[in-house]
Amino acid sequence: MRVLGVDPGLTRCGLGVVDGLPGRRLRMVAVGVATSEPSLDVDQRLLRIERGIEEYLEEHAPDALAVERVFAQHNVSTVMGTAQVAGLAMVAAARRRIPVAMHTPSEVKAAVTGSGRAGKAQVQTMVQRLLALDELPRPADAADALALAICHLWRPAGSVGAPQRPPGALTPAQQAWAGAEQAARARR
Amino acid sequence: MRVLGVDPGLTRCGLGVVDGLPGRRLRMVAVGVATSEPSLDVDQRLLRIERGIEEYLEEHAPDALAVERVFAQHNVSTVMGTAQVAGLAMVAAARRRIPVAMHTPSEVKAAVTGSGRAGKAQVQTMVQRLLALDELPRPADAADALALAICHLWRPAGSVGAPQRPPGALTPAQQAWAGAEQAARARR
Repeated sequence: MRVLGVDPGLTRCGLGVVDGLPGRRLRMVAVGVATSEPSLDVDQRLLRIERGIEEYLEEHAPDALAVERVFAQHNVSTVMGTAQVAGLAMVAAARRRIPVAMHTPSEVKAAVTGSGRAGKAQVQTMVQRLLALDELPRPADAADALALAICHLWRPAGSVGAPQRPPGALTPAQQAWAGAEQAARARR
Repeated sequence: MRVLGVDPGLTRCGLGVVDGLPGRRLRMVAVGVATSEPSLDVDQRLLRIERGIEEYLEEHAPDALAVERVFAQHNVSTVMGTAQVAGLAMVAAARRRIPVAMHTPSEVKAAVTGSGRAGKAQVQTMVQRLLALDELPRPADAADALALAICHLWRPAGSVGAPQRPPGALTPAQQAWAGAEQAARARR
């Protein structure tokens, strides 16, 4: 199964493609960042980011797209652009009949580090380790996109859209993920 | 000049097409609402609304698209969907090289009623009057979309993207518009 993770942003939108199955080894297929100049008008910025996302969808033909769930409470100055890019990513996938999933930042952190409150550096370190990369994935947006894809590949059986049950019991990271997901649901 | 006004919303997205020039009589070309069922997944809801917007762009070939500027402070429970639909509308226009403008709710109210703090009913009444409609435009989202288009057609010379100077002095509504725009800019 191949997942495109999208860490939405109007200035930098992280894109990461990972192959894997629950409980199996992961493989990074591609990673990058779609960017837009803040000096452009918003419609032109959104158009550029959309093209970057569509290039990844065309080139890598993922089986699913995982995007960060954006909350209105976070960073008011950038949240609108972030929400709009997340929307574009979802529609670009939906147009191609690619299933879409949203994961909260704490679900993603829990999936790759075992803790929903892990810091950026910890997430980068674990993404490097899990994908057996020679270097830390940079920039942070790219690492977050890879983490989103991993989170989606490793989501526990029974969670939204899970296509198959993982072979064997949940790993500690998956247990933490399930806890974070449950907590996030309870807050909604 | 033909303007498509878009009042963004995930459940109901108002769409209104108006022909006109600054200081000239206005003519309503089309009005409607793109809708999506709240029971659908967000990506499918966004896809349906996008199709509704694209149908209007294809059928009516506007010279500009005017969309409500969404603020993060407004109604947290619906603002993310609203922002995402506004983003889709902007990108749908940008893909077709149609210029995009954003107007704040108070600019729109001031443009059609003379007051940036007018209520929904007052906006509907004035939209009916200005477009010489037999009935009040309903639902309110459709009236707001028409008001957005009127606001864009009547924007004062010198405001963002204004293609021509209106013949003669500003009307009282245009003066109020300019004031509201200035006040909105000062707040940003």
